[in-house]
Amino acid sequence: MLSKPPRPRYATVRTLYEPGRAPSVETTLDASALMLYFPAPRTVTGEDVLELHVHGGPAIVKAVLAAIPKAKLGPMLSEVRYAEPGEFTRRAFMNNRLDLTQVEALGDALAATTEQQRKLSVRGTTSGLAKRYEAWRQQLLYARGELEALIDFSEDQHFDESPAELCASVADQVRSLRRLLQVHSQNAVRGELLRNGISISLLGAPNAGKSSLLNLIVGREAAIVSHEAGTTRDVVEVGLDIGGYFCRLGDTAGLRKAKQTASHGAQPLEMVGHIEKEGMRRAKLRAMESDVVIVVLSFETKNKESRLQLDEEVIATAAELVRTKDNIVVVINKTDLSRQQDMKESVQEVLAALPGITPDRVHSISCRDAETMSLGPNRSHHLDSGNVQAFLQGLVRHFDELTAAVTPGTADAGTDPSVWQESLGATERHRTLLEACVESLDAFLAEVQPSEHSSDVDASGDSESDADIVVAAEHLRGAADCLAKITGRGDAGDVEEVLGVVFEKFCVGK
Amino acid sequence: MLSKPPRPRYATVRTLYEPGRAPSVETTLDASALMLYFPAPRTVTGEDVLELHVHGGPAIVKAVLAAIPKAKLGPMLSEVRYAEPGEFTRRAFMNNRLDLTQVEALGDALAATTEQQRKLSVRGTTSGLAKRYEAWRQQLLYARGELEALIDFSEDQHFDESPAELCASVADQVRSLRRLLQVHSQNAVRGELLRNGISISLLGAPNAGKSSLLNLIVGREAAIVSHEAGTTRDVVEVGLDIGGYFCRLGDTAGLRKAKQTASHGAQPLEMVGHIEKEGMRRAKLRAMESDVVIVVLSFETKNKESRLQLDEEVIATAAELVRTKDNIVVVINKTDLSRQQDMKESVQEVLAALPGITPDRVHSISCRDAETMSLGPNRSHHLDSGNVQAFLQGLVRHFDELTAAVTPGTADAGTDPSVWQESLGATERHRTLLEACVESLDAFLAEVQPSEHSSDVDASGDSESDADIVVAAEHLRGAADCLAKITGRGDAGDVEEVLGVVFEKFCVGK
Repeated sequence: MLSKPPRPRYATVRTLYEPGRAPSVETTLDASALMLYFPAPRTVTGEDVLELHVHGGPAIVKAVLAAIPKAKLGPMLSEVRYAEPGEFTRRAFMNNRLDLTQVEALGDALAATTEQQRKLSVRGTTSGLAKRYEAWRQQLLYARGELEALIDFSEDQHFDESPAELCASVADQVRSLRRLLQVHSQNAVRGELLRNGISISLLGAPNAGKSSLLNLIVGREAAIVSHEAGTTRDVVEVGLDIGGYFCRLGDTAGLRKAKQTASHGAQPLEMVGHIEKEGMRRAKLRAMESDVVIVVLSFETKNKESRLQLDEEVIATAAELVRTKDNIVVVINKTDLSRQQDMKESVQEVLAALPGITPDRVHSISCRDAETMSLGPNRSHHLDSGNVQAFLQGLVRHFDELTAAVTPGTADAGTDPSVWQESLGATERHRTLLEACVESLDAFLAEVQPSEHSSDVDASGDSESDADIVVAAEHLRGAADCLAKITGRGDAGDVEEVLGVVFEKFCVGK
Repeated sequence: MLSKPPRPRYATVRTLYEPGRAPSVETTLDASALMLYFPAPRTVTGEDVLELHVHGGPAIVKAVLAAIPKAKLGPMLSEVRYAEPGEFTRRAFMNNRLDLTQVEALGDALAATTEQQRKLSVRGTTSGLAKRYEAWRQQLLYARGELEALIDFSEDQHFDESPAELCASVADQVRSLRRLLQVHSQNAVRGELLRNGISISLLGAPNAGKSSLLNLIVGREAAIVSHEAGTTRDVVEVGLDIGGYFCRLGDTAGLRKAKQTASHGAQPLEMVGHIEKEGMRRAKLRAMESDVVIVVLSFETKNKESRLQLDEEVIATAAELVRTKDNIVVVINKTDLSRQQDMKESVQEVLAALPGITPDRVHSISCRDAETMSLGPNRSHHLDSGNVQAFLQGLVRHFDELTAAVTPGTADAGTDPSVWQESLGATERHRTLLEACVESLDAFLAEVQPSEHSSDVDASGDSESDADIVVAAEHLRGAADCLAKITGRGDAGDVEEVLGVVFEKFCVGK
């Protein structure tokens, strides 16, 4: 198939012929295929890679795939098959071209549909996260090494620090690391909002304008990026790109009910009441599970006078959410029905009805004005008729806050803030392992803290204190293993690494 | 975006950043994209080509596309858009990287689903076809040049040949070329069978076994590669890969009727008769238009005796097809009902009933035996139970004959046979232009042939003969233009090319 080995990484055009037959028009498989040969180890998988960019017709691909095994270029090429899902990435990991966090980030990158999801994935691809975990793991191994040296050699050697001093010093380090791990773990939760989407639900009385608002968001300001049938309670979720954030918006029972009322207006009132009740129950449940709840209130005209409607059920649910989850944004709709004076008063009414909510979470809009503008001849995005764009900007600012990296307190203020940005890239798997790591650190601290109280007892004469240190060192190993599991490195050769740390500091042979 | 221009044709991994911002994790678009830069003119389009092989997530692609115009690398990159369908190929043509025949072959290559379609397309990609057309065009321009020289300079110059001798010599060349063009045109028709598929229909009495045979072919020996609703007479066509040949098999009325009889067995006989009649009419029409008609006959048992059924209507249609189109293959089904002796006799019966058919076009099979075998526990492809595979092999041999390149007679036996293989790659467009070319050559011959009779009259003294030569030369130009239209080259600068030919032979300035 090849008359001579291709020049590494150099794109050449070649005619592919059937193997074992004289090159001719009759034996041509593809008259001009692009060839790229990447010799190991600087390749995507760390192995030799030969890329054949052939013309994409089904018969050409079939013919080339059938020809490769016949070429008998080597034992590797005696069988050709399609790669299994993720096989190239798995090979890259096996050949140390990627660590587990990078593998995860790659998966995120390929799945990202919105800009924020993409940015999140970038944080993981640059092995920075893995390096941080690895540095922490080294720190734990080092501390363990120090403790183990104390066990093994304390009787023969002199140390600069007393065993009690050493324990106290390691405990300080561990407490400091524990704080960092917890912030990291918090940020992993926030990262999940970016990765898996911010779940949003709409809450409001039947005619407040939830459907209108949803249609305006979907129609003008956001793009639907996915539809999926929800697994919980038959809620259909729509994936939306709002300002680069992937949002999962549930088509709640409330919304469905609105449609049902329209088409089955002649149904008995009792029946509608029952549906309404069940709809509200589901909407509340979903609101409790949502990352953001948009509470839609509205002006309504009665006896020629417009007033803000504060539905008892809606306000009670919203107040509960403010108190327990602080996850609501209030929208006062149908401002087209109100006077300027009433609008200002209505915001005050909302602030009074929902204690604890801040004014920046209350927006006044008019879906009708926005709809009229978007249908009119001078349709313009600059004129924010109905104030819907201002509301969405406020919503995106709220998303920014929700997903901003948490930074530790003043104690660690010296740390580069980009570290915390990076920690948003931590996945749910990382978070679980980080928490297991924190548990091991807690166990370590519980073990060494009693010995702190007996710090004036000489370690060499106190066998009980020795036993504590063996157990404590084991907890550090457990904590280090959790971090190793995140990057997928360091499980094997662990003992050697620990010994390496020990011998680096102590000249045992001396 | 790029700190320095990439090394030509060399695959490098680069991180793509947002243009105009400091490289960082925050401004990363894709952490590891493969870059390939192909400087003009040795590129697919003949222009500079920069390939960015980015990770395929939707958000990454979107971000990179949005960033390119901002990079302000040059006026070309100030706007980025998706290529129009075929735009790269069109640019390749505009930049003389491909001629029209290659463009057509590329389209065929990409569309090819079967091995024979792919092989056909290969014949066109290697510009051999275009070179042949161009050689013929040059030959015509050369001949025209000779004739025009006769017109322009015959009074001042001496020629080796007399005008009459020259005309006779050109006419000989033209006649020879005309023969080649006609063979080429025939092969284009055969090439269309490979390209657009061999249309096949099944003809036979209702219970002869058409459906069973079709199911056996589709189920075991062939792959369905496409389904398309036929445009003519509501015939649904199934695209099949039979032995590498793309075949279009019509689900004929006959087949449908068979199903209807099965499900509506209780319908009045008169009704079925009407449907049968209409079905047969359509089947006949389709058979007349098909490239291959498989006539299915069968043994049937009556009064405990099995006999070959020769349905009057079926035999009459088949005989007509043998006489007018010679496109039938006969299958004698249900041999499981017959004795060995009867089978041999039945072939003789068919040969007698269809005068002109050759024995290699008559096959005996048993769909029932084939079905039983394929369902049994020892299902095997080696044992050709029911003889269906032998029939299909015969069918493929028939396809080989149908699509083999026609070669001209002994007069041109010296020509390399691969030329005629290549001519199968000629498309329907080529064929139309080749026939227009032949018409122009005929007009030329009609023009110069009368002057052959008056060959003893001196051309310089006969102005009538001069007029003929002007018109004749114009016919040659018309013929050359037809060939130019095939390759898409030579329309412009035609006069210069003709002059070039003239001045090459005659030293006018002397």
